[in-house]
Amino acid sequence: MERAVSGVRSKRVPGERDKATTVLSMVGLPARGKTYIGRRVARYLSWLGHPTRVFNVGSYRRRQIGASQPADFFAPSNKEGRQVLHDLAMTALDDMLVWLREGGEVGIFDATNSTKERRRLVEERCRKEGLPVVFIESFCNDPGVIEANVRDTKLKSPDYVDMDPDAAAQDFLRRIAHYESMYETLEDPNQSYIKIIDVGRQVILNRIHGYLPARLAPLLIDLHVSPRPIWLTRHGQSDYNRHGRIGGDPELSPAGEEYAKHLAEFVRKNAPRDQEVSVWTSTLRRTIQTATKITRSPRTWRALDEIDAGVCDGMTYDQVRIEMPDVWAARSADKFRYRYPRGESYEDVIQRLDPVIIQLERQRSPTLVIAHQAVLRAIYAYLMDRPPGECPSISVPLHTVIQLTPTAYGCEEKRFALPPNVEDQGAGG
Amino acid sequence: MERAVSGVRSKRVPGERDKATTVLSMVGLPARGKTYIGRRVARYLSWLGHPTRVFNVGSYRRRQIGASQPADFFAPSNKEGRQVLHDLAMTALDDMLVWLREGGEVGIFDATNSTKERRRLVEERCRKEGLPVVFIESFCNDPGVIEANVRDTKLKSPDYVDMDPDAAAQDFLRRIAHYESMYETLEDPNQSYIKIIDVGRQVILNRIHGYLPARLAPLLIDLHVSPRPIWLTRHGQSDYNRHGRIGGDPELSPAGEEYAKHLAEFVRKNAPRDQEVSVWTSTLRRTIQTATKITRSPRTWRALDEIDAGVCDGMTYDQVRIEMPDVWAARSADKFRYRYPRGESYEDVIQRLDPVIIQLERQRSPTLVIAHQAVLRAIYAYLMDRPPGECPSISVPLHTVIQLTPTAYGCEEKRFALPPNVEDQGAGG
Repeated sequence: MERAVSGVRSKRVPGERDKATTVLSMVGLPARGKTYIGRRVARYLSWLGHPTRVFNVGSYRRRQIGASQPADFFAPSNKEGRQVLHDLAMTALDDMLVWLREGGEVGIFDATNSTKERRRLVEERCRKEGLPVVFIESFCNDPGVIEANVRDTKLKSPDYVDMDPDAAAQDFLRRIAHYESMYETLEDPNQSYIKIIDVGRQVILNRIHGYLPARLAPLLIDLHVSPRPIWLTRHGQSDYNRHGRIGGDPELSPAGEEYAKHLAEFVRKNAPRDQEVSVWTSTLRRTIQTATKITRSPRTWRALDEIDAGVCDGMTYDQVRIEMPDVWAARSADKFRYRYPRGESYEDVIQRLDPVIIQLERQRSPTLVIAHQAVLRAIYAYLMDRPPGECPSISVPLHTVIQLTPTAYGCEEKRFALPPNVEDQGAGG
Repeated sequence: MERAVSGVRSKRVPGERDKATTVLSMVGLPARGKTYIGRRVARYLSWLGHPTRVFNVGSYRRRQIGASQPADFFAPSNKEGRQVLHDLAMTALDDMLVWLREGGEVGIFDATNSTKERRRLVEERCRKEGLPVVFIESFCNDPGVIEANVRDTKLKSPDYVDMDPDAAAQDFLRRIAHYESMYETLEDPNQSYIKIIDVGRQVILNRIHGYLPARLAPLLIDLHVSPRPIWLTRHGQSDYNRHGRIGGDPELSPAGEEYAKHLAEFVRKNAPRDQEVSVWTSTLRRTIQTATKITRSPRTWRALDEIDAGVCDGMTYDQVRIEMPDVWAARSADKFRYRYPRGESYEDVIQRLDPVIIQLERQRSPTLVIAHQAVLRAIYAYLMDRPPGECPSISVPLHTVIQLTPTAYGCEEKRFALPPNVEDQGAGG
């Protein structure tokens, strides 16, 4: 069984991720979750390999004229204030265009952009650079959602540091009212836009045809922030782990079976009452065996299988280093992009994990993901907004539960080391 | 390098395709492409492994009361006609519910369902069976689209056989007018619906949260039927093909290189003027080499790589039969579901081809897909609406271009055998 052995560093981006420079311009009244949506889109696209950056006009304002502007600064009647805000928005827009010219791929322009006139201006400036603009509006009149948003994010912002919360909330609601008086929702049939109504209850896609904008729809349909735990863990120790071998489909070692028991206990103790825990595994035996003390029928995802080490599958790292020095050198030079001959790179793993991420975002109850080192690094990078290139160095030890709880702008992390303590050979997924 | 060798027939559906019995109920005036959309959704979901069937009320009408009903039969004032149509719709609905009860997964109720009252009735009957209903409306007032639809599909229907086309068109437009007078568009914020406006110019997703309905959005965003050719071909003959070996990453044989030249000539001759041809390959050398005479930078998709034969990669079928009789027997018993140990099944291949299919549907200009036997069988099954279980027996010979041109309800097929003629060992993708 000979196999072509040639170290392949994927030089061009794979076809699924052709570069498509795009401006995403947020639209919406204050406290409608624009920044939340913008950051989440940025996190998702960056993870998929599209360099994305958010340009938040609020930050420009705070940096350039200070945080503490009273509500009336934002009044339509305050001509001077309007001019200042307009200039700040244009500065942020210009910075974004420079960044895109210099190699960025997706620029997210995070401002209210609440009038047709302003949006026309944004389109005009982008058109001069040959850049398509997709507007993303968050439209919501549910007082509960707005209040929660003001409480969870706005009152913690630098705008209201050291201010009495009630007074701050009142000030912020007055600021919203000023914007409301001028607000025009998206409705131009010729514009390209995504309108999210009531946190995803309804989503309108208008002239959304390209690869990249279309890719956002599944993400934007479900925008809830239910504070449910996501538990990530590798399978219990396997026979391969004990010998530092890569890949394979080995069974659990006695220590690994011990871990499966402790994991089941952990889940029983920590699952919120009255909530069912979803248990996901890969199709490989060591993850399914790790789940058996919790459920006999986990949801098995092929997308959760460990990175395919191709011709190196079943070898130890030492063997690879000695028997395939070219492979070893190429992989060491760029662990993220390096694709094992006949196998996968981390980039490849991320592409196939996409449906898992979309489903993970949809979950409203606790989810336990029992998988493998490289795969969990990729999932962790998404949830914790780490640059994908850092995947190969993210620590995901054996016999450890990583608990991530989604919050407004990221995830809270806790780690639980469970017995038995085992040595980690740094291989074997 | 030992590998666990255990023939794995995936017994339960993989996690990505958990069963979610659902009713999709079409909504729309006549000639808005309801049947087109319904069939396309059915084709897509069936291919993804969800048994789906369309229940078309028009067919019930033609079967039970004959095809030739004049426009006025459909008038709101024709009480008797209304009752007949109502009964027919309920018969079709009941048949669908029986089919779902007996194991079907997605039922598509293809009728106008043009009033709130009718939709309430559909929901009520489905709710009794515990079935969620998602309405899919095609809303379009573009006279050009409606006329084209009447011309391309309606005048060819049994309703108007042997009738003068102009008279038939006039009759059909009168029929539409009758429905228009009663028509109520979808707007209930509590209903789950997808509203497609002007052939995908705008798409509204209302309460679309489950796995399956959300999966439809990318498909429904781009519903065009541009009559562009899709060319499917395997790579030119490889060294493995000559020796009947499976998988690997071999280079082209001299005969394979010869084919690459003839393929380039074929594309030059057959590409419509002024249209750029997109060339897609897998990441394997034999497909990229087959493209070189056409382009130096094809779009390479890892998703187009040949089915992973796992531990059998590089073997001949004879070797597998003799050295791994269990694998051979299990695979022979169910070639579609059989997953090579450490490799893939046809079902797995279909899941990973999903983004390729979505992109293929978006293409408006000719696309040449240079790939492998199993992968092309799966793509062909989608385009030609063949049951996915038939994939393993679809003929995709070497040195042959399969030209598929999308039409209103399917694809037109032509096959071109190009030189040189080579023997096909039935292996080696």
